Amino acid sequence: MPSARPPDLPPEPSWSGWGDPAEASELSDGLSQLLTQALGIRRPGRRVGPLSALAPPPSRIPATVRAALESLLGAAHVLDDDEARIRHLRGKSTPDLLRLRAGDLADAPDLVLLPASHDEVLDTLRICSRELVAVVPFGGGTSVVGGLEPRSDDFTGQIALDLRRLNRLQALDEVSRVAVLEPGLRGPEAEALLGEHGFITGHYPQSFEYATIGGYAATRSSGQSSVGYGRFDEHVVGLRVATPTGELALGRAPKSAAGPDLRQLILGSEGALGVITAVSLEVRPAPAVSAYEGWRFESFAAGAAVVRRLAQDGPRPTVLRLSDEAETALNLARPAEIGAPGASCGCLAIVGFEGTAEDVAGRRREVTRVLEAAASGPEPEAGESWVRDRYHGPYLRDALLDAGALVETLETVTFWSSLPELYAAVSGALRDSLSAQGTPPVILCHISHVYPSGASLYFTVGCAALEDPLVQWRQAKAAASDAILAAGGSITHHHGVGRDHRDWYERELGRTAVRALRAVKAELDPQGILNPGILIP
Amino acid sequence: MPSARPPDLPPEPSWSGWGDPAEASELSDGLSQLLTQALGIRRPGRRVGPLSALAPPPSRIPATVRAALESLLGAAHVLDDDEARIRHLRGKSTPDLLRLRAGDLADAPDLVLLPASHDEVLDTLRICSRELVAVVPFGGGTSVVGGLEPRSDDFTGQIALDLRRLNRLQALDEVSRVAVLEPGLRGPEAEALLGEHGFITGHYPQSFEYATIGGYAATRSSGQSSVGYGRFDEHVVGLRVATPTGELALGRAPKSAAGPDLRQLILGSEGALGVITAVSLEVRPAPAVSAYEGWRFESFAAGAAVVRRLAQDGPRPTVLRLSDEAETALNLARPAEIGAPGASCGCLAIVGFEGTAEDVAGRRREVTRVLEAAASGPEPEAGESWVRDRYHGPYLRDALLDAGALVETLETVTFWSSLPELYAAVSGALRDSLSAQGTPPVILCHISHVYPSGASLYFTVGCAALEDPLVQWRQAKAAASDAILAAGGSITHHHGVGRDHRDWYERELGRTAVRALRAVKAELDPQGILNPGILIP
Repeated sequence: MPSARPPDLPPEPSWSGWGDPAEASELSDGLSQLLTQALGIRRPGRRVGPLSALAPPPSRIPATVRAALESLLGAAHVLDDDEARIRHLRGKSTPDLLRLRAGDLADAPDLVLLPASHDEVLDTLRICSRELVAVVPFGGGTSVVGGLEPRSDDFTGQIALDLRRLNRLQALDEVSRVAVLEPGLRGPEAEALLGEHGFITGHYPQSFEYATIGGYAATRSSGQSSVGYGRFDEHVVGLRVATPTGELALGRAPKSAAGPDLRQLILGSEGALGVITAVSLEVRPAPAVSAYEGWRFESFAAGAAVVRRLAQDGPRPTVLRLSDEAETALNLARPAEIGAPGASCGCLAIVGFEGTAEDVAGRRREVTRVLEAAASGPEPEAGESWVRDRYHGPYLRDALLDAGALVETLETVTFWSSLPELYAAVSGALRDSLSAQGTPPVILCHISHVYPSGASLYFTVGCAALEDPLVQWRQAKAAASDAILAAGGSITHHHGVGRDHRDWYERELGRTAVRALRAVKAELDPQGILNPGILIP
Repeated sequence: MPSARPPDLPPEPSWSGWGDPAEASELSDGLSQLLTQALGIRRPGRRVGPLSALAPPPSRIPATVRAALESLLGAAHVLDDDEARIRHLRGKSTPDLLRLRAGDLADAPDLVLLPASHDEVLDTLRICSRELVAVVPFGGGTSVVGGLEPRSDDFTGQIALDLRRLNRLQALDEVSRVAVLEPGLRGPEAEALLGEHGFITGHYPQSFEYATIGGYAATRSSGQSSVGYGRFDEHVVGLRVATPTGELALGRAPKSAAGPDLRQLILGSEGALGVITAVSLEVRPAPAVSAYEGWRFESFAAGAAVVRRLAQDGPRPTVLRLSDEAETALNLARPAEIGAPGASCGCLAIVGFEGTAEDVAGRRREVTRVLEAAASGPEPEAGESWVRDRYHGPYLRDALLDAGALVETLETVTFWSSLPELYAAVSGALRDSLSAQGTPPVILCHISHVYPSGASLYFTVGCAALEDPLVQWRQAKAAASDAILAAGGSITHHHGVGRDHRDWYERELGRTAVRALRAVKAELDPQGILNPGILIP
């Protein structure tokens, strides 16, 4: 089985921004104008650096613990240089980036470990549990919910467990179409390894270039093609997991009636119950044909009704997204043209098809018949533009933060009948909170993932940054989160809980469910070393 | 919302056999001949009775506990008459029936309770937890894995919590296509209530006439239309659960990334973690058109290859089943004709389509193209016969037991690449064990549920009954269960764990997972009153 790291892997990401530094975005004239005129931006954003000029607090790990870890992993795989520690500090939420940009390096991990196997992970956890060292499993570092921001004050130290050396395709069962993938494989690496055999994962979240297989599983990730290919968790048929008290090997079949589905206890556990060391994943043949196009509805409500009809009665496209009026007007579906003159009107849907030529032709014909009755289109250029720039959005945030904007996203999900109320409630809460702070926002939204019984809403918020944008955003985010729960939504559809959503997650679960979850945590991780403060209320 | 019990509900089932006594099967001449000639049956089966002549051991419940329960539920809903206690004793496995037929009434519940609401269930559990009374949640009583056979020796008594009065359609959200159904609704009741609004569950297990919504959820039931409509658990979007220490209300959306999916901890929990008091279920429009037909393959392997191709690449029929050579030869797909002269050859597949006229026509055309290349057909009569008799199989078992046969079924699931080995291993283990006991068996098998990465195998075994058929079967079943685990299968695809599979379930899970499950049990049910001895290793 091939295990080499493919050569086209994106480079190390920016330490205080998104992705490949060479891909950094420039703001278009239209967007610059929007920032100053519509949002009233006054001062540029702060950004310390370079990385080499910064130093985190001294490492706290006792020498004996370090020696034990070096003996286990080899000294070359136990890092405490400043750069390694800073690069494993926090994720990629706007608050994460704002703190890094301000030079706040508190809570940097004391050590970065690079284990290469399940057994090394298992032994690392045993040592850390015995020595009361907090462990943060680290994949792509792309969390946007504080999933890499543990509370480690009560511990001897904090370790980032970087899984990048667990990067093999362990096995591929072509008959069953199941691949056993290691957790440290980034999206492009996994696709390259599978591609040699003609398969794909079908999983393409916006964080694709950096996010990892382990992270997809640990956070219940959903990709942009979830309508056609399904969510990541739906295709996980087996998991191997290392915990401080032993290992789990779950999944002897796609489905079973042998008790509760314990795979579903690990999926979404965000490193707080164990470290995923292998994922058995249903894969699918690489599509022969793909086609993307735009369709334009008169209103968000009209578009949502048709999107719902397709989700419920089919046929389902592979990709199906619907922007609201504000997002369509800003051309957010085409990041390279955001704010460009001649902004779009109505509500743009992106509809994509992937599969065999016959399958694509058949579904496209049926979907087109449904769309033609309610929308104008197709607009091939809108589809092609979306595909080309689908991973580009986060790069733009760095340029906006540089310019003095506060930009962040949040998302939620509910049943179809509650969607209009949820949309209004979240938009209203964000607008009220930020306007009351003197920074009236632009709020954009799209439906990004649809199911027969419900759909997700993905909001993008932009406004002028205040002197302390962290406090500014914390207020707005809390208001939005309260509104989500009050309107019956879930606190997150695909970003996860992390530290940022934990209090709302606790309210969403209720006391009895929280107790059940804590009981599992206490059993698998009795010292509570795994991602302390993350997920578990 | 309508809540009346529809008039066409099947009558109370036979106390020591399957289903409506008026539907009891006669053995055909061909089958009688087979029994004596091929299986060497010597003596008829034993069957004590009538019910009115039998008495279980005296009820153990202290008067004070009974008074507390009567005060809570009303005296009319606290039963301890002999008939009620016998009718709530055990399920419908062959060992269950053999023990009832022999007049073994040990372990009959001491009381039968009929709560009518979530709150009544919650309060009942609190009383029973305080008084150390074991509680067995009781739906349709159709368990075939000892799911209603608790170990209650360490308790003050044992109560059957019959949920038949929780039989309302609480709500129907026609926009989201989500129904809130109470757990005591039997299959036909639920369909009738949804049918008034044009919806169906799409869930039709062989136990459909008696099994309940709560049972479907608690055992991760799969219906005969699972290929097209999915498994029951896949459509559960919300659960309300009463536990001895509080209530759970899970599910704010079809899918979410808010932590582990705790609905999946209750689905399959078999009454050992809590009592399900409401199920929010995705429903679908009643199909306008249905069509069933038979197709005949030269061999099981050839048929399995095509069934796999349809499961992986589509289009998927609504029903897709494939009998092996032995099952096809015995006409098991047509229970009314089992063993009739002119037995079939090859391997018969039943292929069914339900949906709109256009959808059925489209899928059928594509599926036919795939089938024509590898099978002969269609045989409309085989499909119609299967639909007509689809719930009839279990009735025949009673007649076979009467005649002195030992007949039972078991099932498993694995990935496609392991299916041939699993098939051979289980068949071989059953044949070896029963032949060594002097009763060489007939072994029949079909693929009943298919997924992109795997499929289930459903075995039917028949042989001459020995003097003690319970011991005879226990040996054969243990050999089959060992073979399932050794070949990499799951101990059950859709029957559940109960008491019969518990030891193998423990081996399948592994020690760390067992500890996690026990921790949840200890937290939600600290006195262990819920279905003691069931599921949890």
